[in-house]
Amino acid sequence: MIENPYYSQELHGPWQTWSAGSFELEDGGNIPDLQLAYVQHGKLNRRKDNAILIPTWYSGTSKVMEQLYIGKGRALDPAKYCIIVVNQIGSGISSSPHNTPPPWNMAKFPRVRIADDVRAQHKLLTEHFKIKSLALVVGGSMGAQQVYEWAVRYPELVRRAAPIAGYAKNTDHDFLYGEILREAITSDAGWNDGWYKDHREVHAGLRRHAKIWSVMGLCPDFFASESWRAFGCTSLQDFQVGFMEGLFTQMDPNDLLCMVWKWQRGDVSRNTGGDLRAALKRISAKTFVMPIDTDMFFTVADCKREQKLIKDSQLRIIKSGGGHFGLFGFEAEYHEQIDRHLGELLSSKVSD
Amino acid sequence: MIENPYYSQELHGPWQTWSAGSFELEDGGNIPDLQLAYVQHGKLNRRKDNAILIPTWYSGTSKVMEQLYIGKGRALDPAKYCIIVVNQIGSGISSSPHNTPPPWNMAKFPRVRIADDVRAQHKLLTEHFKIKSLALVVGGSMGAQQVYEWAVRYPELVRRAAPIAGYAKNTDHDFLYGEILREAITSDAGWNDGWYKDHREVHAGLRRHAKIWSVMGLCPDFFASESWRAFGCTSLQDFQVGFMEGLFTQMDPNDLLCMVWKWQRGDVSRNTGGDLRAALKRISAKTFVMPIDTDMFFTVADCKREQKLIKDSQLRIIKSGGGHFGLFGFEAEYHEQIDRHLGELLSSKVSD
Repeated sequence: MIENPYYSQELHGPWQTWSAGSFELEDGGNIPDLQLAYVQHGKLNRRKDNAILIPTWYSGTSKVMEQLYIGKGRALDPAKYCIIVVNQIGSGISSSPHNTPPPWNMAKFPRVRIADDVRAQHKLLTEHFKIKSLALVVGGSMGAQQVYEWAVRYPELVRRAAPIAGYAKNTDHDFLYGEILREAITSDAGWNDGWYKDHREVHAGLRRHAKIWSVMGLCPDFFASESWRAFGCTSLQDFQVGFMEGLFTQMDPNDLLCMVWKWQRGDVSRNTGGDLRAALKRISAKTFVMPIDTDMFFTVADCKREQKLIKDSQLRIIKSGGGHFGLFGFEAEYHEQIDRHLGELLSSKVSD
Repeated sequence: MIENPYYSQELHGPWQTWSAGSFELEDGGNIPDLQLAYVQHGKLNRRKDNAILIPTWYSGTSKVMEQLYIGKGRALDPAKYCIIVVNQIGSGISSSPHNTPPPWNMAKFPRVRIADDVRAQHKLLTEHFKIKSLALVVGGSMGAQQVYEWAVRYPELVRRAAPIAGYAKNTDHDFLYGEILREAITSDAGWNDGWYKDHREVHAGLRRHAKIWSVMGLCPDFFASESWRAFGCTSLQDFQVGFMEGLFTQMDPNDLLCMVWKWQRGDVSRNTGGDLRAALKRISAKTFVMPIDTDMFFTVADCKREQKLIKDSQLRIIKSGGGHFGLFGFEAEYHEQIDRHLGELLSSKVSD
C-alpha cells in the first residue's frame, strides 16, 4: 500500500465503502476483500424503482460526476432519483493496486475486466440496496463501457441506458491508443515493473501520458480556438503543464494501468461467444447512444455501428469543441444537451 | 557517422547529390558542407519553365514520391515536366545527423528549419539548374510546409502551389503531437542523449514512436474497415509490428528528431514578423490547398482557415479512408483525386 493524498475523502469524498467480500474475477483469481466506494444522492422510494446508477470513467471519481452531472433541476436530479455513483475498480478509491494490502498490491493486483465491475456493482445494488430495477444506467467513456455491460448482462434490471462517448466493444484503433498510454508510463525507469515506492518516481512517465491525452483526448479545434481558457488556463503551456500534468502526476501509475487494461478489452460480446450482434440484441433497455462529435477515439461512426444493432435505441450526437474531454463539461451547451437528452430518456415510458 | 543500410542507393536511389557548400542556418550556425540529395525526372525545356519541385515528407525520401506520385500519363508526367525531388535536410539521404562527419554529427547536428530547406533548394534550383520559374511546387505533409514556405518566400518564382495535408503555420495541437513523437524516442535509455552507437539500440523507442503513428497517422475508420489489408498485412499485429515497426525501426532516431523539430516549428509568418495574414498575402501562385478529410493532425478546418487568406486559392479536399497516411496512396481513388486536381492546376493559365 502506498500513501497518496490524491485519493482522499478531502478531495474526492465524502464516499461510503461496501465490501463485496472475496470477489472472483472473470480472468480467474480473486480480490480477497473487494471494497467498492460509492456515493448516494437522493433517496430510494418505497417501490425501489427510482434508482439511477452511474459508473465512473478513466481516472475520474464519483466527485466529478457529482460536480458536473448531478444537481437539483437537472436531468439527474437527487430530488427525484436515488442516484448511486460507484467508483470503478482501479479508480484509486475502490479497491485498486495502490491501496490493496500485500501480496495483491501494485503490479500483483489481478487483471480486472469491465464485467467484473458490473458484477460487483450488481452485488452492491441487489444485496445492499435491494434494488430490482434501475430507471437508468448512465456513464461516460469507461462509464459507457460499463453501461453497455449492464444492459447486456442484466437486461431485466436496466430500464434505460445512456452510454456517453464509449463503445460496447472496443475497437482496434482505441486498443492501440491504450497501448501508447501504457507505454508512456512503463517506459519510465521509475516505473520499475510497477514496484515504485512513491508515484512521484514515475512523474516523467505520467507527464508523457498526460501529453498523449492532450493530443488525443481533446481535438485540434480545442487548441485552434484556445478553449483551454475555459479551464482557467492562460497559455498552452499552462494547460499542458499546469492542468494536464498537474492532474495526472498526482495519480497512481498502477491504478491508471489497471484501468487502461480494462478499457482496452471492454467487450460485451464476451457474453455471447464473441457475437456482438447477439450481445446487443439482448439489450431491452431504451437506449440513447450519445457520442461526442469531435471525439478522436470513441467516434460517432463507430458508436453508430453499435447503436444500429440495439432494438429500442436512438443516436443522440453531442456537439462539443473539446473532443473526448467534452465530458469535462466546460461548455454550457454541453450540459444543456446532456440534460435535454437524459431528461427525455428519463421521462419516456418503458415497460417494467 | 553511423552505418545504416536503410539510407542506401539500393533502397532509395538512384539519387544525385549537390553540395550547397557551407550553409548558414536561420537559427544561427551553419552546416559545413550541406549535401542535397535530389532526383530529376524528365528534362528541362529550353525556356527552363517546365520545372516542378517536390520536397519530401517526414521519414520519406524521393523514392516514395517517384513510386507513388510521378509517372507517364499522370499529372506529374516526366514526359512533359522536369520534376525535381529534393530530399529534406535530416531525411537520412541529404545532410542529416547520422551521416554528417564529427563534430557536427548526431546530437550536435544543428537545428534546422523549414526555411533552411527552402533556401537550400532555392540555391540548387537557381545556381545548379538555372531555373527562374517553377510551374509547380507540390508536396505532402512536411513537403506541404516547404511548399508554403516557397510560395511565401519566393513568390516571383512559384507559378503554382499545391500543399497536400500540411499547414503554412503549424498548430498548437500538431506541435503537441510532435512532442509525444519526440518523447517516445528520447525516453528510451538506448537513446543516450542522442549518442547511441547503432540505431538498433533505440529500437524500443522507435517502436513506441511507430505505435503513436498508428494511432494518429491513420484514423479510426482505417482500423474499423481493416484497411491494413491494402498494405498487404494479414492482421492488426502484422500491420503494427510487421509494417509500422518494421518501417520505423530501420530509421535513424537523430534524423527523425531533426525532422520533428522542424515540422513542429513550420511557420511562414516568420517572414513577416509573426503576421500570418501578411505572409499568406504574399503568395501570388495559383494555389490548391489539399487537406485529407480524415487527417487527425493536419485537419480540413485548420487548412481551410489558411486557404481563405490566400488570394488565388481553392480548397480541394481529398477523400481517403487512411487519415494522414492517405498520402501513402494505398487507394486507387486517392491517386485519381490527386491527378485530377494537380492536372487541373497544371493546365490552368497563370501569369509568368
